[in-house]
Amino acid sequence: MHRLELTKPDGRRLTLYGRQPLDAGLRAPSPFAEPLNAAPHLRWHPLRGEWVTYAAYRQGRTFLPPPEYNPLAPTVSADNPTEVPAGAWDIAVFDNRFPSLGLPPGGGEPPPALAVPTAPAAGQCEVVVFTQDPQGALGRLPLDHLELLLQVWGERTERLGARPDIRYVLPFENRGAEVGVTLHHPHGQIYAYPVVPPVPARMAQVAAEHHAAHGRGPLEMLVESERAGGERVVYAGPHAIAFVPPCARYPYEVWITTLRPVPGFAQLEPAERADLARALKTVLLKYDGLWQRPFPYLMAWYQAPTDGAAHPGMQLHAEIWPPYRTRDRLKYLAGTELAAGFYAMDALPEDKARELQLVEVTP
Amino acid sequence: MHRLELTKPDGRRLTLYGRQPLDAGLRAPSPFAEPLNAAPHLRWHPLRGEWVTYAAYRQGRTFLPPPEYNPLAPTVSADNPTEVPAGAWDIAVFDNRFPSLGLPPGGGEPPPALAVPTAPAAGQCEVVVFTQDPQGALGRLPLDHLELLLQVWGERTERLGARPDIRYVLPFENRGAEVGVTLHHPHGQIYAYPVVPPVPARMAQVAAEHHAAHGRGPLEMLVESERAGGERVVYAGPHAIAFVPPCARYPYEVWITTLRPVPGFAQLEPAERADLARALKTVLLKYDGLWQRPFPYLMAWYQAPTDGAAHPGMQLHAEIWPPYRTRDRLKYLAGTELAAGFYAMDALPEDKARELQLVEVTP
Repeated sequence: MHRLELTKPDGRRLTLYGRQPLDAGLRAPSPFAEPLNAAPHLRWHPLRGEWVTYAAYRQGRTFLPPPEYNPLAPTVSADNPTEVPAGAWDIAVFDNRFPSLGLPPGGGEPPPALAVPTAPAAGQCEVVVFTQDPQGALGRLPLDHLELLLQVWGERTERLGARPDIRYVLPFENRGAEVGVTLHHPHGQIYAYPVVPPVPARMAQVAAEHHAAHGRGPLEMLVESERAGGERVVYAGPHAIAFVPPCARYPYEVWITTLRPVPGFAQLEPAERADLARALKTVLLKYDGLWQRPFPYLMAWYQAPTDGAAHPGMQLHAEIWPPYRTRDRLKYLAGTELAAGFYAMDALPEDKARELQLVEVTP
Repeated sequence: MHRLELTKPDGRRLTLYGRQPLDAGLRAPSPFAEPLNAAPHLRWHPLRGEWVTYAAYRQGRTFLPPPEYNPLAPTVSADNPTEVPAGAWDIAVFDNRFPSLGLPPGGGEPPPALAVPTAPAAGQCEVVVFTQDPQGALGRLPLDHLELLLQVWGERTERLGARPDIRYVLPFENRGAEVGVTLHHPHGQIYAYPVVPPVPARMAQVAAEHHAAHGRGPLEMLVESERAGGERVVYAGPHAIAFVPPCARYPYEVWITTLRPVPGFAQLEPAERADLARALKTVLLKYDGLWQRPFPYLMAWYQAPTDGAAHPGMQLHAEIWPPYRTRDRLKYLAGTELAAGFYAMDALPEDKARELQLVEVTP
């Protein structure tokens, strides 16, 4: 992995990554000339016992791009700078211009005083450009490009997680208009949180209890039984596996992980990373092959918190949640899912796994 | 409140409610002649530590209704029976034909044996028809009709909650195509769960901790400060209040509750119920008035669990979550909300409350 760290004219950081050495003469463009200097803030939700972040930036959005302007494509004209330069690089990571988390130098304006506790929204929001090709897709990248992405996620996790104000690092991709994405250039995001957010906090608690009871984490035990049974497996490699979990909450939900449990990207051996890349590519190609069209999804990569505590049983894995129930029908999260947190499914994971198993792909 | 309990030809229960006495000669229709005799089952999600329910009923859905058939409208022809009879009634409650929770007589087929724990999906799913008028809307019902609905929710909660297999009763309404509703006849649902689901379980835990520390529940304290400040209040009555919470997770989120904290519908005094109905009507009329069109939302009514334990600090209240950020733009729940459980907002609750305050309505 080769890396080049740059600073944009508005002060934001840009890091370029390549499979080959990078040209040290590359410069970081920005559509914005001036720093934002605005700070999001947190408010405490006293009924759910969790933080919510507020970033009311709309007044700062004076930039009006021309039609067809793609901020994630390489800059071709100095008159219309994008977020990334032209040149030989594979993956780019930069600070989000309108972050939900992350403070400007000096901390910005203080949070408002309210009846509920408030706090500055420390942390970091990064955008990850997966490829220079606006027409590309994560699943169609070469395997060594996907391996690089797994390395990049690991490097970002180590850098962000080492900061004392960051307790959890979550790389994710929202793909498709169905999940609200309007910018179709292949990209993901990294949220680095000042607290361990509710879902991974719950996972860490459940995993620790399971580890104390069984000596192993819940995912490690599930992987063992899924491998042995095979009924829901969509990829089985020497070091990695992908399967529809028996407890899927979305019809085409797939989990991807390594056979050896590791807490995060940074602990992957090269052979594990390579097989994980192949598992990821296989799943994404099967998705796109299922109905011969781009398959929307939300993909999250869960790791152990970076809060300095031990998290026995927490295992690096991806959960991919596609919004479709069938070719034509979306699964809406409604009353029981959102209000109760209790998911209701009208499809069996075994049936959906079979559909994905039958899609032939060449990763 | 007047009530008439009936049984449908396929064995499901139907209860009619009226402000006036009901005709004891009414009969319960059903689009289906035979019992379903299929059972949903639960599977344990070992990473999140929660149950997921599976109801793979599609093979049983042989009923093909004619175009424009509305199963929630009163039956006008014996050739096309709907779910409710013609006659003088105001609100109808019946068992969902394809429930996510609830077992047929005898229990139905046993749950499958899997690597994760499984269990029969006990509980109950009910449909609540708010009015006979297919063109109506909850917010346009007369106040005494809304009071009746609050009574009905209370009566269902008492009946369902008294069952040993039911630990939590959640009335909710999904409204609008934007939240996945295809049937526009005004109606809601009641889910009665065999466990306390994750969200109310968390609420109960947080409320109990707050009550132990402060001697009062978190909502009771918040109501006091919201009333005093008024900045986010959209209805203030002698016994009830509605406000955009300072920790709103949706731009137009509103909470409705009573000034005196009560654990559930059944504990409301008549004057409190009347004012709660007026608060509800006010909020829903403001929603529809904001953009002069039906405003979609998910509305959930949280109560204390019916598991027999004490739940200090848990207070009956509605949370209403509209999916729109602006007139034209939806708020999608994506990476940070769904994967982390950490909500990110780009609008301030104070600004959205002001918008709702300015909508003039006559409840």
